[in-house]
Formats: sequence, C-alpha cells, structure tokens
Amino acid sequence: MNTIGHLINGQLVSTAQRMQDVFNPATGEVSKQVALAPKETVEDAIAAAQAAFPAWRDTPPLKRARVMFRFKELLEQNADKICEMIGQEHGKICHDAAGELQRGIENVEFACGAPELLKGEFSKNVGPNIDSWSEFQPLGVVAGITPFNFPAMVPMWMFPLAIVCGNTFVLKPSERDPSSTLYIAQLLHEAGLPEGVLNVVNGDKEAVDVLLTDKRVQAVSFVGSTPIAEYIYATASANGKRCQALGGAKNHAIVMPDADMDNAVNQLLGAAFGSSGERCMALSVAVAVGDEAADTLVAKMQAAMKNLTVGEYSDKNNDFGPVITRAHQQKVVGYINSAEADGATVIVDGREPSISGYENGFFVGATLIDGVTPTMQSYQEEIFGPVLQVVRVATMEEAMQLINDHEYGNGTCIFTRDGEAARYFSTHIQVGMVGINVPLPVPVAYHSFGGWKRSLFGDLHAYGPDGVRFYTRRKTITQRWPSSGVREGVSFAFPS
Amino acid sequence: MNTIGHLINGQLVSTAQRMQDVFNPATGEVSKQVALAPKETVEDAIAAAQAAFPAWRDTPPLKRARVMFRFKELLEQNADKICEMIGQEHGKICHDAAGELQRGIENVEFACGAPELLKGEFSKNVGPNIDSWSEFQPLGVVAGITPFNFPAMVPMWMFPLAIVCGNTFVLKPSERDPSSTLYIAQLLHEAGLPEGVLNVVNGDKEAVDVLLTDKRVQAVSFVGSTPIAEYIYATASANGKRCQALGGAKNHAIVMPDADMDNAVNQLLGAAFGSSGERCMALSVAVAVGDEAADTLVAKMQAAMKNLTVGEYSDKNNDFGPVITRAHQQKVVGYINSAEADGATVIVDGREPSISGYENGFFVGATLIDGVTPTMQSYQEEIFGPVLQVVRVATMEEAMQLINDHEYGNGTCIFTRDGEAARYFSTHIQVGMVGINVPLPVPVAYHSFGGWKRSLFGDLHAYGPDGVRFYTRRKTITQRWPSSGVREGVSFAFPS
Amino acid sequence: MNTIGHLINGQLVSTAQRMQDVFNPATGEVSKQVALAPKETVEDAIAAAQAAFPAWRDTPPLKRARVMFRFKELLEQNADKICEMIGQEHGKICHDAAGELQRGIENVEFACGAPELLKGEFSKNVGPNIDSWSEFQPLGVVAGITPFNFPAMVPMWMFPLAIVCGNTFVLKPSERDPSSTLYIAQLLHEAGLPEGVLNVVNGDKEAVDVLLTDKRVQAVSFVGSTPIAEYIYATASANGKRCQALGGAKNHAIVMPDADMDNAVNQLLGAAFGSSGERCMALSVAVAVGDEAADTLVAKMQAAMKNLTVGEYSDKNNDFGPVITRAHQQKVVGYINSAEADGATVIVDGREPSISGYENGFFVGATLIDGVTPTMQSYQEEIFGPVLQVVRVATMEEAMQLINDHEYGNGTCIFTRDGEAARYFSTHIQVGMVGINVPLPVPVAYHSFGGWKRSLFGDLHAYGPDGVRFYTRRKTITQRWPSSGVREGVSFAFPS
Amino acid sequence: MNTIGHLINGQLVSTAQRMQDVFNPATGEVSKQVALAPKETVEDAIAAAQAAFPAWRDTPPLKRARVMFRFKELLEQNADKICEMIGQEHGKICHDAAGELQRGIENVEFACGAPELLKGEFSKNVGPNIDSWSEFQPLGVVAGITPFNFPAMVPMWMFPLAIVCGNTFVLKPSERDPSSTLYIAQLLHEAGLPEGVLNVVNGDKEAVDVLLTDKRVQAVSFVGSTPIAEYIYATASANGKRCQALGGAKNHAIVMPDADMDNAVNQLLGAAFGSSGERCMALSVAVAVGDEAADTLVAKMQAAMKNLTVGEYSDKNNDFGPVITRAHQQKVVGYINSAEADGATVIVDGREPSISGYENGFFVGATLIDGVTPTMQSYQEEIFGPVLQVVRVATMEEAMQLINDHEYGNGTCIFTRDGEAARYFSTHIQVGMVGINVPLPVPVAYHSFGGWKRSLFGDLHAYGPDGVRFYTRRKTITQRWPSSGVREGVSFAFPS
Repeated sequence: MNTIGHLINGQLVSTAQRMQDVFNPATGEVSKQVALAPKETVEDAIAAAQAAFPAWRDTPPLKRARVMFRFKELLEQNADKICEMIGQEHGKICHDAAGELQRGIENVEFACGAPELLKGEFSKNVGPNIDSWSEFQPLGVVAGITPFNFPAMVPMWMFPLAIVCGNTFVLKPSERDPSSTLYIAQLLHEAGLPEGVLNVVNGDKEAVDVLLTDKRVQAVSFVGSTPIAEYIYATASANGKRCQALGGAKNHAIVMPDADMDNAVNQLLGAAFGSSGERCMALSVAVAVGDEAADTLVAKMQAAMKNLTVGEYSDKNNDFGPVITRAHQQKVVGYINSAEADGATVIVDGREPSISGYENGFFVGATLIDGVTPTMQSYQEEIFGPVLQVVRVATMEEAMQLINDHEYGNGTCIFTRDGEAARYFSTHIQVGMVGINVPLPVPVAYHSFGGWKRSLFGDLHAYGPDGVRFYTRRKTITQRWPSSGVREGVSFAFPS
Repeated sequence: MNTIGHLINGQLVSTAQRMQDVFNPATGEVSKQVALAPKETVEDAIAAAQAAFPAWRDTPPLKRARVMFRFKELLEQNADKICEMIGQEHGKICHDAAGELQRGIENVEFACGAPELLKGEFSKNVGPNIDSWSEFQPLGVVAGITPFNFPAMVPMWMFPLAIVCGNTFVLKPSERDPSSTLYIAQLLHEAGLPEGVLNVVNGDKEAVDVLLTDKRVQAVSFVGSTPIAEYIYATASANGKRCQALGGAKNHAIVMPDADMDNAVNQLLGAAFGSSGERCMALSVAVAVGDEAADTLVAKMQAAMKNLTVGEYSDKNNDFGPVITRAHQQKVVGYINSAEADGATVIVDGREPSISGYENGFFVGATLIDGVTPTMQSYQEEIFGPVLQVVRVATMEEAMQLINDHEYGNGTCIFTRDGEAARYFSTHIQVGMVGINVPLPVPVAYHSFGGWKRSLFGDLHAYGPDGVRFYTRRKTITQRWPSSGVREGVSFAFPS
Repeated sequence: MNTIGHLINGQLVSTAQRMQDVFNPATGEVSKQVALAPKETVEDAIAAAQAAFPAWRDTPPLKRARVMFRFKELLEQNADKICEMIGQEHGKICHDAAGELQRGIENVEFACGAPELLKGEFSKNVGPNIDSWSEFQPLGVVAGITPFNFPAMVPMWMFPLAIVCGNTFVLKPSERDPSSTLYIAQLLHEAGLPEGVLNVVNGDKEAVDVLLTDKRVQAVSFVGSTPIAEYIYATASANGKRCQALGGAKNHAIVMPDADMDNAVNQLLGAAFGSSGERCMALSVAVAVGDEAADTLVAKMQAAMKNLTVGEYSDKNNDFGPVITRAHQQKVVGYINSAEADGATVIVDGREPSISGYENGFFVGATLIDGVTPTMQSYQEEIFGPVLQVVRVATMEEAMQLINDHEYGNGTCIFTRDGEAARYFSTHIQVGMVGINVPLPVPVAYHSFGGWKRSLFGDLHAYGPDGVRFYTRRKTITQRWPSSGVREGVSFAFPS
Repeated sequence: MNTIGHLINGQLVSTAQRMQDVFNPATGEVSKQVALAPKETVEDAIAAAQAAFPAWRDTPPLKRARVMFRFKELLEQNADKICEMIGQEHGKICHDAAGELQRGIENVEFACGAPELLKGEFSKNVGPNIDSWSEFQPLGVVAGITPFNFPAMVPMWMFPLAIVCGNTFVLKPSERDPSSTLYIAQLLHEAGLPEGVLNVVNGDKEAVDVLLTDKRVQAVSFVGSTPIAEYIYATASANGKRCQALGGAKNHAIVMPDADMDNAVNQLLGAAFGSSGERCMALSVAVAVGDEAADTLVAKMQAAMKNLTVGEYSDKNNDFGPVITRAHQQKVVGYINSAEADGATVIVDGREPSISGYENGFFVGATLIDGVTPTMQSYQEEIFGPVLQVVRVATMEEAMQLINDHEYGNGTCIFTRDGEAARYFSTHIQVGMVGINVPLPVPVAYHSFGGWKRSLFGDLHAYGPDGVRFYTRRKTITQRWPSSGVREGVSFAFPS
C-alpha cells in the first residue's frame, strides 16, 4: 500500500513509527497510509527551514518571485493530476477541485508581485538632514497548519506568500487527504525553490505541538475549527509567536422580499451544497424576511434541489461528493435529526442517499430544513455538511440581529435589489466577509480573507495584503550622516 | 491630601476602597494618593466605552479628526501645566517632559490625518460586473495599559489613534505618576470628545486583569517590562483578543573606529542618561570596536560626564532627575555593584550622588562602567537607570553577534562614517529600530514603534501606520447587482 | 477708494499703472480698485518665490505641516471676516461663503498630513546588496491661476498642498473679487510662513502670460473656463512645464422613474441654484427618464422654487445672490431667451427678478426650462447661472448617451434607488466625478477633484492624493556600497 | 527583399507607398525594407484600437493580467530569436540584447500585478451615510512612439502596462530596427491578446503626427531626443492629450577621492561604452574631484580600455557593436574632433577602429577624452556614442554645480565610500535617477523611469507605479442611498 511521507530539505522522508489510514470517501475503502511525524521529524523540518533561511532571505525579491512564476506554470500544467489526487482522498468532484486549485493559483499569481508588495516607506528629512524608512523583513521559519477541506487551496493561501516574502516554511497539512498537498510542494521545488525553504510534515497533535512551542518557529498560520483555532492561538501566543488562527463559521444569507428570487435560489444551490457544504464559507442558513419570501424561497429551492446529483469525484455530472469520513457523515445526519426533533421541518431529506455502486461511501444528500429557530442546536453549531436551514423573520433588522448575535462572523450575504438595504447591511453586520448578491464572498487573492468574532483570532487576515504584513516584520531605520570632510574636500584620518 | 481618581463616562470618580501613595521622587515625600480601581469600577469604564461606541463609530472620520485638531491646540496651550505634573510625580526635568509631550502631540497630529489613513482598497471587476472593496472598521472597546516612564507620551501613542479610528477606549495608566495622564484625558473632553469614548481607570493588577478578560474589550495595547508583556500577551490572546505588548530593552550602540568620536560622545550622553535612563530606548551599552576606539570613547565620556548635573525637575540646568522609587534606586545601585563585583571597572560612579536640599530623593548619578562582558548580570538584564556600560570587541561582526544574541531587540545604533558598514548593520541586525549615527532611533509618529525578539509580542508595531491597522478590523465586501429592470426601463414589481 | 494690491515676499505692494474696478454685484456699484500687475511685478513675485525655495524645501515636512495647523486655526477664527469679503465682491450669501471656506479649510487639514503623504517607496535588494528608493521632491516655483466663483476655496485647493510639499507659490487670483484671497494669504504668513513662500499677484492676461512662460515657474494649476484652460495647457506645455488646467462643465442629473422624487427635488434646488449656478459643479441639466418622471419632477420643482429668495449676501434668509457682472447677467438671460426661441418652455422665469433696494444689482432669478433638446445652444454651452434645464428621454441608455456625447465631463449624478442602475451608471459614464443620489459630487479633500473630456487637461486631478503627485517630482535613487574595509576591520587608506 | 509591415487588428499589413531601407550596421548593407505608414494606415490602427476598447476595458484585470503571464513565458521561450533580430538591425551584441530583453520582461512581470496596482481608494462615511471612492479607469486608445536604441525594451516600458490597465494601444516603433518589436507584438497575440488591442505601425513623421492630432488618441508616451520630445509634448498637449515625453541626457559620474577606484573604473567601462553609448542612461561624463583622483582614473581607464573589443553582434566576445547609421558614426567622430579642436586630450582614440571583415560597418571604438571643459560643444550636447569625457574639478560642490547647470537631468552617479557625501549628493542633485556607486541607475520595473529638467516633459515618469497612473484616469464616485423602505419592511411604490 502506498505510504505518504514528509518532504524535508527537498527530500521525501517516509519512515515513521505511527501510520494513519487515508480513505477514498466515495467507496469507504482505505487507499493509502500516511506517516505521522514524531517530534524529531518535525524538528528536522524546522532545522532544515532554519538553515535555509539566511540565503533565502538575502535572495532578491525579484528572484524569489520568479520561482513563483514558474510554479504557476507547473501548477497549470499538472492541474488534472492534482485534481485527481484531491478527488481520490477528499471526494470533491473534479470541477470543484479545479476551482479550488484555481483559487490557489491566484494566490501564487499574487505572490509574483512580491517586489511591489514588499515596498517599505521612505521619509526624507524627518528632522534636519535625518531620513527614516521602514523595511518589511521576513520573519524566519513560519509554520502553516491546514484543514482537509481544501488540501490544495488553503496551503497556497500561506506558503507562496510567506516564501516569496523571504521566509522558510514548515507545512503540516491535513492527514486526511495529504497527497495533493505534498505533490504541490514538490512542484514548487521543480520550479526552482532551494531545498529547505518549504518543508511538509504530515502528522497529528504531536506534530502540531512542536510547531507551536519550538522557539525557532516565528509565526503560525492556522485554518480549522474554532476550538482548535483557539488552542492554536493561545498556545502560539503564550510561546511568544505571532499567530493567525481561522476557525469555524455559520454563514447566513438574508433573502429580502425584493430579491431576484430565481437568482437567489440559483446562487444558494452552489453556496450551500457545493463541496458537500464542507467549506468555511458555505452558506448554511437562509434567513428569509417575511413569510411570502420564505414560502417562495423554500418552494423554489425544493424544486431546484431535485436536479442535484451526488456521487464520485470523477463524474463531472455530479454536483458534489461524499463527506470526509464515516464519523462526519454520521455527525451531519445527527444534526438533521436534531433539527427535526426540535420541531423544524425537513423539506428535502438527504439522510439516506442511494448512490449506486458506492453504497459504502460517506455520502449525505442535499438537505433543506425549514422552520429552524435560533435555539436549535443545528442552528447554533457548524454542521459542515450539505444542509441548508431556513430561518423565517419578520424584518431585516431581526435578520441582522440573528447574525450579529451568532458566535461566528466569517461570511454572510444579502439578496436584494436595493442600494440602501445593501449599504446598511454591509456597514453594520458584524461579519468579516460580506456578499451583496454574492453568496460566497471569498475575497479575491489580492484582498484578504478573514472572519470576525470567533471565526478568526489575530490582527491580520489571511493572504493578500494582510498576508504580506503577517509574514514580514517592520524594521525602521533612522539615519543621519555627520560630515566626515569627504564632501568638503578636507581629507580625514582615522583616530590614531 | 489630593486624591487622584478615575475618569469614566466624562465624569471624575474618586471613591475607592484601596489607595496608593504617589511620591515626589526628588524629595522622597508622598504628595498625593491614587485610587486603585476595583473590578466593578473597571467594568463601569468598559460599559461606558461600550455604550459610547455605536455613535462614535458612525461619526464621520473627518469629524473625529477635528476633535484631535482641537486637542492638539489644547495640549500646546497647557504644555507647561502638563510638564509640571510630570515633573512632580515622575521627576523628569521640565525640558525633558516638554520633549515627551511634544512626541505625544506628534501622535495627535498623525491622528488628524485619519480620513486619509482609513482609506480602504477598492477593486473594480474582480469578476464580470463584480466589485470588491475592503473597509477598515473600528474594533469597539480597546484597552491601553501604560508605564510610569512616559505618563504623557505612551498613552498618546495609543488613545488618539484608537479613538480617531472610531474605537472607544479604557486607559489604565501607571499608578506611579497618574496626574498628567488624567489631565490630558480631560483636555480631550474639552476638545469635544463625547462622554464615554475615553475612560481612564487607575489601578493595579486587579484592574489589568479585568481588561484582559472582559469579553467586551476587543484589543489590548501594552507598554512595560518584558515579563509583564508576556503575561499580557498570553492572557489577552487566551481570551481571544488581539494584543500588542511592548516589553524591555537593552539597546547597544556600536562605536566604529571611523566614527566621529566627539559626535558619538555627545549623542551618547543624552541617550544614556536622559530621563535617568528610564526609557525603553535608552542606550545602555556602548560596544566599542577595537581598543583604540574604546579607550578614546571612555576617556571622552568620562570628561564629558563631569558636566552632567542631576537634580529636581523644575531647574532647567539639571540634565536629569531622580529615578521613580526608592526600590528602583536601590535596584540600579545593585546592578552597578554587581558589575563591579563581576570584574568590570566603574569609571564614573553615580552610586552616591549628593544633591543639596534633596537628600531623600531617589537619585542615582550618571555612571560609566568599562570592561563589561556578556556573562555579567548587569549586561544581561535591563537596568533602567543612568548607567552606561562599555563592552570591548575586536570586530564589527563580534559586536553584531552580541546584539543578535541578546534576548531583547528594541533599539540599536551604529556610529560610523561608512556607507557599507551602516547598510550591512541595518540589514542584518535583529533589532526593530535602528539608528545610523542616531542614538535614539525612535520612529517619528508617521512611522511605527516596535522592537523585535522579546521586546515586542504581536504582529503590529505601536502608533503610525501599524497603529491604524491594529485599531481597525478589515471587512471585505463583494458586490454584484442583478438587473432589476430599472435600468432597462422595464418596470418591476415585488414578488406577490 | 480702497486699492487692492499684491503680496510679494511677505509685503503688500500696491503701486500699479493699471487698475480695474471691483464691484459689489448686489448694488452694481464700484467698491474698490484692484491693481493689475505688469510683467515686472510678476517677475518680482517669481523671484521672491525662487529665493525662498531652497530653505523651504529643506524645512522638514513636519515643520511645514505645523504652519498649516496654525493656518487652519486662523482661518476658523477669521471665518466671518473672510465670508464678508467674499459676499461684498462675489455676492454669495454668507452661509454659502461659509461653506466655500469650510471646503477650503478641509484642504488645509489634508495638507497637515504632509509627512504621511510625502512618503516615498523603499525597496531592499533590488539586486544583491543594492537598494533603491523613490523620493517625492518639491518642484520649485509653482503658479496658480484661479477663478472668481470661489475666491477662497479654489486657491486653497492649490497653495496649501503645493507649499506643504515644499514648493513656493505665485498665485494669481481672480481680479473680480480679490480681497478674501489676499487676506487669506496674509493669514498664512501670520501662521508662520516664511516670506516669499506664498506670493499673490493680481492681474490679467499680462500677468498670466508671465507665469506661463517664465522659465523659473515649474508648474501651473488653473481653474476657469475651457477655452482659457486649453490656452493655459497648450502654452504652459509648450514652455516645458507641467500643467493641470480645469475647465468648464455641463453637469447632468439623471432622474430615474424609481427615484425618491421629493429627495431629488430637494437636492436639485441647491445644486442648480446655489451660488447662482456659478459653480463648475452646478447641476444645470436634469435628464428625466420617462414622461411620468419628467412631469412629476417639473411640477415639484416649480412648486419648490416658489420659496427661493434671491438677494444680498448678508441676509441669511436669501438662497442665493447676484451673478458676478452686468455682462454675465445679460449673457445668462440671453441663454434663457435662446432656449425659449428654440422651442423650450420656460416654466419658472428668473429673467426679471425684482429685488427691492437692489434694483441695480446683477441678479437673475431661479429659472426652470422644460423641453430642452440637445441641439439647443442653451444645452450645448455652459450657462453658469441659476438656470436648470430639463431634457426628457425615454430610457436610461439614452440619458447616458447624452452625457457621454457632451464635450464636458466634469460632474454628473443619478437619482435612483436601484443598485444595478447606479453601478452601471458610475462604471460607464464618461465623467470624472459621479454622484449616486448626491447632486454635487465634489470629492472630499482627501480624494481628488477632476473632470474628464474637455473639463480637465492634464494627467492628475486637483488637490488630494493627485495634488501631492502634481506638486512633487519623483527621484529614484539606487545605492550599492562597495566594501571599504571598515566593517571587516581592515583599515583603508585613500588613494595617494 | 524582406519587407516589414504593420500589425493592425491582429493582421500583418505590408502594402505601402513609401518604403525605407533597414541596414545591418555591422556590414553597412541594406538587409530589409520597412513600410512607412501613410495617414490612412495609422487611422486604421487607431480605429482598430478604438473598436477593441470597450470589450477590453470590461475584461476583469485578472484576466488581462493572465495574458501578460503567458506573454512572459513566450518572451522567455523566444529570447534567442528576439536577440538575433535586435543584433541584425541595431547591431548590439547578443548578451547586451539579452539584457535589454530581460529588462523588458521585467516590465511584463510588473504588469502581471495589475489587479493589485489598479486598486482604488475607498472612504466610508465621508459624510453621514455617504461613501466615496476613486477608481482608476483606462483612458481608451493610447499611443507609444519609441526609439531605435532599445527596440524591445522601450516599447515594453509602455504597452504591457497600458494594455493591462485596460487601454488599447498603437505603437510606432523606430523604423531603423523594427523587426524585433513587431515580432514581440505578435507574441503578445499568441499569448491570447484580442485583436485590435495592440497595433503596430511603422512610419515616420507623417505617422507620428496622426497619433499626435487624432482625437481618438487619449495619451502619448514618447522616448527619443529632447528636440523631438519637446515637439511631441507641445503638440500632443495642444491637442488636449496627456503626454509624457522623455528626451536626451548627459549623464555625469562624480568620482570622489575616497572612491574605490578599481570598482569605479570597472563600472564606468560598461556604463560608458556598453551598447556603443547609445543609451539615454549611458554615463558619458566622468567628473573627477581633485587631480589625483583624475590622474588615477584616466590611467586606469586607459589601461582597462585596451581589453575592449568592438564588433559584430553574434560574437559574444565583443563588448559592443556598431552605431546605428553611417550618419551617426560621422556625427560621433565629429564630436571627438571638436573636443580635440577645443583643447581636450584624446587619451584613447576610437575614431578609426579596424574591424576585420566589417570594414563598411558603422563602427566607432571606445574613446576617452581628458581635459574636457563645460564650454566645449562635446560637453554640452548629447553624443550618443562610445565616448567618455573626463572633466576635472577641485571640489564636490563644483562637480554638483556642473550637473545642476546642465540642461539635461536624466541620470547621474557618485562613486564614494562616504555616507554623508552620498546623501548630500542624492538630496541636492537636480537629476531624476541617481546612482550611489551604481553607474546606470535605471530604476527597476517596480519603480519608475524619468529624468528631470529637459530630459522629461510631463508629470509622471515612465513604467512602474507612475506608468499605472499615466495610463489610467481617476473617477471619484460619491454615493448616498436614501431609504426606499425596503430595509424597514415598508413596501414602497413608484411615484404615480
């Protein structure tokens, strides 16, 4: 059986004492095994990164950027292979994997602009004949810890930008679907990255804790669930590191009475069920303002959902695939059950999908639940599955209050045709990423990604301009030159 | 006896169960008492700030900036009174207090530029007919915890910028010299600040811990010693807040053989002994490269130090005043003793200064110690007194290694006439604020203040552009407008 | 009779061979005389500016900015006096003059941020051990030529920013209403401006031509009519200068069927008739989409206009005052006549206003004309009077085509409640300043002012960030330091 | 014989009434003919660009940037072919052509960052509930007119950035060496550029004048000699266009007594003679401070120049090739003659180089002239040939005065080890591009290129951040949404 190891100092390393199964979630079968790095292996990776740092830091940004230009080419040339790897281990349909990869490539494209992005600020004459400027220098060894749901994209939110800024990197991707991540890291080496600049270790909490506590690691970027994000943020901070930790979400769409309802339904389909809802930007709650809007929405969603097909990654006709594990499948079903038990109405029921030929796969069908209320557990927690819940409210203020009261503040959206409603919403909603008639308002690579409240811990958002600031450290130099007589033509001598 | 209280919701509040003495350090006498806020009082301040937030957030930045314009005028008009308050409680000479205040005012001047500073980023057509922009919104209630050594300046690194960005603020200044801080806060109200936007609570750890743990506080800025900075950073982070915590320093000046030695000596006098060395940017170690440079430096310093006078704040002829407390005086003397015991040579000895008429004051005279080595306790720890230690090294690389090996990385300086040496130094030194022939390279208000290593915990430096980012939260909006028929001239109707 | 002279090198100079009458347009009487500078006087002003340049350029930006801080205070303290001067010579009502002055002060506030605005770009390691940065240095002597309609504001679009950037300035304001401009220039000196940095010369074409051709003048900013703007731009450019020349306008408001009509009418009143329409941002054409919208608009405007009162500047109950000259009054009336002759309907007729006690004033009453078509002269040319013309179109596309076909492209506005219509309009309209439900979309001082097409000649808009770029010149330094042995500890010797 | 035509709307067009010879300057033979576009052909190109504009403007910047990513790949893949074309028609040695091409590619790399570069400025709450933002929209049809000396690089200073900003382009390259330019334009089409977005017309003054006067052309970028630059700037401006016109140069290097003389000589060799001195950044004057420095410099230069070899482009051992035409060769020799006649000493004489096998080539050998004075014609005018003149001065101030008095202000350099001298020089020298120990301080692609004084006419420098501003037009939108009742839940109706 295929064993997936680590990439340290440019070399694949696969010896391990502990291994973990990697599943094909569409069949439920174990397809590979991944090595779980012990403390020593992670320390080797950190040491490799530490050793590679001085030379990489001193490489001009333009040269570092050119590695990214070549990396982009290689990613595009090998896109099908990467999407296949994602499909086999994560289960997402190939067109969805291609979308993920494309988003990752956009971060590489942004990283190609490093020479511009790294410009510091120069001030002439802060005092008489005194100049001062700020430089943004790399930090040193930086760690990234990434989740299973975007094995290609989320790592590429981090390491291309960190590396192009002059840092060296240790990445611990999800052990659920490690192959595409590792392959992408190899492509970056093929693009000309010096050994040791990017290192990948697979592992679990043991590996994570080394990254959080080792003094050589300067900063940690994390994407995952909120409880883990909190642990990461508190632990990395207590160890004196800078940290950005992105957590969970419960993304609401407000559907206003004046919305273009067909458009809203069409958008919600992809936003709620795409990638089985295993996205931190998935729209999982539709808040309909007024019963008329709600009735229309539910009726049209119900009709539209009939055309959704669930299945295996390689069939392009499928809309989405299985969830990541058997346990997660059961957890999602459990939330649907609890909503029903709490009095909500399951309008479209995905609890027992029948996928011919894939009876053992970890599938959940697209599910629509009406009559959900804020006190239900299914409303309060992140389901991370293909489940859209409808909450009915009387006014837009009520809808906004719901969102502002929720512990998460990652993404949100409003469907309306009204300028005033949209502006009021975007101004006053306590959420970091806001869509106006855009259901998945993931910022483009040249803006930055980040939620508010318990969806992100830290000062700076991920990737984009904030990413540049996160991966660099300001140094301010103040300079005055006393006359040495050279200019005035008087020759000078050293003190003797 | 005068009692110093709190400023909450625009009102002075001075009832307290616990009081602490405030000394005149030049006489050693208790001059006032400061109320120490219990938990409830701090919570009142937080509540006032929380209540004031929505209206202040929605006040246009231009209007908020105009309060700062008026604040600057009032600070300038009342400068003498403020400096007097500082002198009485901190002990620094009036011209030194004036310098501190001026630095504070410069931060207010920077804050006047809020409309420009708060500009977000706008991107047209991130996709077809989709626009996206990022706004920088205020956080809510922000806390500042500030040290005794700059009772006017350090608070003004924080609250003017935080407030002009739309936040409301709870400041806990040092309980050693609280009067000037409180008065400055009153002036800001006189300038037109609405009640509740800035609140001042005096107190000790009890008050601090409320600020670190109360859920309503969104962010904490701290300046103080490194052990406390670490505690603040870890605790605030564990409570999910953003935090910047600035700690201690051990600032080295490298004196190169080609330096303009008279200039270097002149600069070092002020940088080492100004404000009794109680500055986190004080230059406390001179690293002389080569014995010739060292001998010259020591001889010239010794001669120059004869002219330094120590004494009471109101006499402008004095160069510096007492240290803050009796305990601190003894601690500084203890470091001098330990250096001597460890084999260093006390060239100029300030352990027993005689200040006629101020025999009970907390004075330490300017002290110069030669032959200090990196293993001595006096080298490793921050003394925070008027003590300059000379370390002798053979090469510039050795000098830089010393600095890079020290746990602190706040400020540093090189004295040289050589372009190459200066550039190599500023590039490779692991210190956040670097001077080239500038001994106190405190960044101007429109750059940002921050050390590296254990001198600062957090991503973003204090004040300046980094301050704006620290006190605001990015929100990214992505917008698409489906056609409603209005433009095309087809009338539309609501779903009915 | 009062004679208004020049301000050169800090001194008032009023000797002149040629004088011109200054009127009180409300009474039609000559109130003062203004000296018209001959070539030599303008050259004196240029020489004074040239002499003052080196010291002012080398004054740190922070110091230059502080002069602006004080200038703002003085402008605010003397606001009533300035508004009185404006009223007496221009005729605008005091609240309107106060608004103008406030807009001018906002430009001074922006100029106070000079240290931040002048930051250059610093790039580390553009090659191995090579750094490069760009500075923005002042140009030298800069000239401004400004119109009668905003004697306080438009000059303050120019000289505060030019001066705070380190330039010295020669201003030639309008000879129609020179007093407030001159007084404002004196206040800047009172605020601490060194002599020679700002010089004011009153004059006509003779003075202008010196500014356009003298080799010492580096750049010219102009605001006025398009024919003159073209002449200025071509002449200054042919003399090798940089130039920005802002010309005329014909600002259209599209009134959509879904607009909040009461709000639109209310906004149009001020935008069309405020300051007698003598504003380059005045809304002079309302394009109603659909006859229903047009009928409603015309009816509501007609009703609302009954409450407008025309009169003398000092009566706060007046809505607007006279136009600037008798000739201009007749020209405006001529346009109304021509529209009527061309078949349009004069709904509200201001051709013969009766202003008791001011029978000889240069008044035109608020005029509303319906049924205007694009072929009429009154539509094609800028009227610059209190005349609002209504054009009726069937669709929004037709309305936009009208605007895009017009030679001017200064400002425009749409009244709608629809997000899509607003976004389409702002994206595709060929106009530099666009309002969405904002009838006078004059950019705030921290954005920049500029039209498109024949409303502005040049690359950069006026004031704000573009103003900073216009008044500074980029210098890019690339630096490499060969080793001199100082750092390595090898002593070096000069070539001998 | 090969005929070189135009590229219009994606099609090669070679019919022409007028043709001009293209030479191989190494052999003196005519190798091809280039069609000279009549007015109609240029108008066709403009029309094609105009037609292509709307769709290209509305293509998202990210998509436009991706064409540039592919263009970069194609340029790298076809580098040898391009360099061969340059060598055959321009004569520069292949490694020099490769350097030129690389610099051009760097501008394409910068253009790949368009999404970041085109960000506008967004301001929330410029007034209560009023937002304002500035967008940078493309201009429309833009023209570029480029010189013979960098047939690949200078066009790529212009069209990649103009095009990625959304403009369409008409390029008129030099008719001396048109092949590489045309081929590069074809590669951009191969990279996916839509037809009509980039058009190339070969031609002479007839073609140029169409570009300067046609109303559809919005802006003109020019690089060439100063007399033509002045004509271009004045004519384009008189036609209401924005224009940047870069002209000639006389770049001085100050050699200080403390300079590393071997390094200086080594740098000067390439900077003075590379590409036969046919560069606007060529260092053509060395100003030696002190006779000792001068004597050393001249002696070392003389010795070093013995190793320079002149010859045909394809031999990599050659240092530089012929000049562009027979006439130019004679002009360069004429300048050497005049210097000699004026009393200067020709130390190394390149007037009659003997290049075996290329006796008819347009060669001039590397020439060093000592004792040049400011009154000599050879000093005052731009030679544009492989001639380095040495001027001797007594002080650095005298050296700087020379430079500041010269009509040109393109590039300059100082050789020194002294920080103070370097800072004083870069601050006070009236030159746009300054080198400190860098003889050819051409700004990298992410800064901007531009001289001062009569070396550049216009506000904005070429390429880099200034290029973005030159190729875009600011539009400022101010937006307020009156309530329509949608948000408040009250249904609204149209005015009826």
